[in-house]
Amino acid sequence: MDQADGRPPAVVLLSGGLDSATALAVCISEGFRAHALSFDYGQRHQVELDAARRVARALQVDRHVVMKIDLRQFGGSALTSDLAVPHHERADEIGPGIPVTYVPARNTIFLSFALAWAETLGAGDIFIGVNALDYSGYPDCRPEFIEAFQAMANLATKAAVEGRQRVRAHAPLSQLTKAEIIRLGLGLGVDYGLTHSCYDPGPDGRPCRTCDSCLLRQKGFREAGAEDPAWPS
Amino acid sequence: MDQADGRPPAVVLLSGGLDSATALAVCISEGFRAHALSFDYGQRHQVELDAARRVARALQVDRHVVMKIDLRQFGGSALTSDLAVPHHERADEIGPGIPVTYVPARNTIFLSFALAWAETLGAGDIFIGVNALDYSGYPDCRPEFIEAFQAMANLATKAAVEGRQRVRAHAPLSQLTKAEIIRLGLGLGVDYGLTHSCYDPGPDGRPCRTCDSCLLRQKGFREAGAEDPAWPS
Repeated sequence: MDQADGRPPAVVLLSGGLDSATALAVCISEGFRAHALSFDYGQRHQVELDAARRVARALQVDRHVVMKIDLRQFGGSALTSDLAVPHHERADEIGPGIPVTYVPARNTIFLSFALAWAETLGAGDIFIGVNALDYSGYPDCRPEFIEAFQAMANLATKAAVEGRQRVRAHAPLSQLTKAEIIRLGLGLGVDYGLTHSCYDPGPDGRPCRTCDSCLLRQKGFREAGAEDPAWPS
Repeated sequence: MDQADGRPPAVVLLSGGLDSATALAVCISEGFRAHALSFDYGQRHQVELDAARRVARALQVDRHVVMKIDLRQFGGSALTSDLAVPHHERADEIGPGIPVTYVPARNTIFLSFALAWAETLGAGDIFIGVNALDYSGYPDCRPEFIEAFQAMANLATKAAVEGRQRVRAHAPLSQLTKAEIIRLGLGLGVDYGLTHSCYDPGPDGRPCRTCDSCLLRQKGFREAGAEDPAWPS
């Protein structure tokens, strides 16, 4: 990929899920040279990182970095593989409050690494596929958190403080329903068959179809009037 | 160490240098059960981490975690071992502006991990030994950055958002001169012979005595009227 094609670089957090794949497509559609950043942080299943690699390749990012960080060193409650993922029959059975799948300070850590890479690249734009509507339980997915991160970032980096590069934290899906996200992504050519959403996949990597993430994905495709290529009915 | 001795837990960022050793001593003197956090991030010399381990042991922290993160994956300018460290004869020759030893978003990343560990521990207090007076060049050492991080953190974690645990980012050295820091630490019994400050140590780990950090340390001890046990005259 030509480094001097005139497109400004940007860093996109890419989990391999539906939302981050859409955020990556939005970033590219807005004219950025996308650099995808994923984390190997002791999550339950490597199938998520496989999906991130597929999506990064399909959308032709400039570079994809998988950063290894060991949150398990902090002990019990940061160890996602120790969590019992709740299962339900239908999306409307998902309870209120912050889900047990919350990982302490996860998005803060992810965005901090994105900030470091952005400054290294001479980039000011960071994209994150957080969504505050369909699954508002995570505190670090809310617009007020993203805004506070951006404010902090603009006091943190040499490039921002010297006035060379302001930091903009983009959360393009923030106010969209899951169905709207899917329609947006389909319009941008995202192949959702490459993505992975399940919190509790089987040994073969197949989605459980009953965790919060599977149910919200299913509901989203149904409301978007589309078939999920990763999960044909 | 008794987990139920009534002292609230706190996380302290510990580099192995003079400032962070003092911040750790302050944390303990304020009645916290200290958890020390260091990073193996591709810094020039392991002698820094050896110093962190010595200090953590001497000050009897509850636990010391050395988190390995590979900032070198982001390429050139994040690779501290590629930097040419400037050398001078005297501290007043140190130039203005942000030093070349700046690492993109380093304190943002470090504080984010501290935040994750704090939440895991049920702690709200994070200590960082930044100092804005004697070496004000780093943007992420300034009080306004620390305040912005704290504001962001209080929107980020489950514990803060649920009102169970506010985050307080303590920077107890922020407004002290190097000499005042040294006097404070000596009063708290810090053995500065265990600490390491040099940006460019020799193969035997000895300080170069001419980098910014060595010169500021030397000036600090001189102004404090004390002898540096790590660097006897």
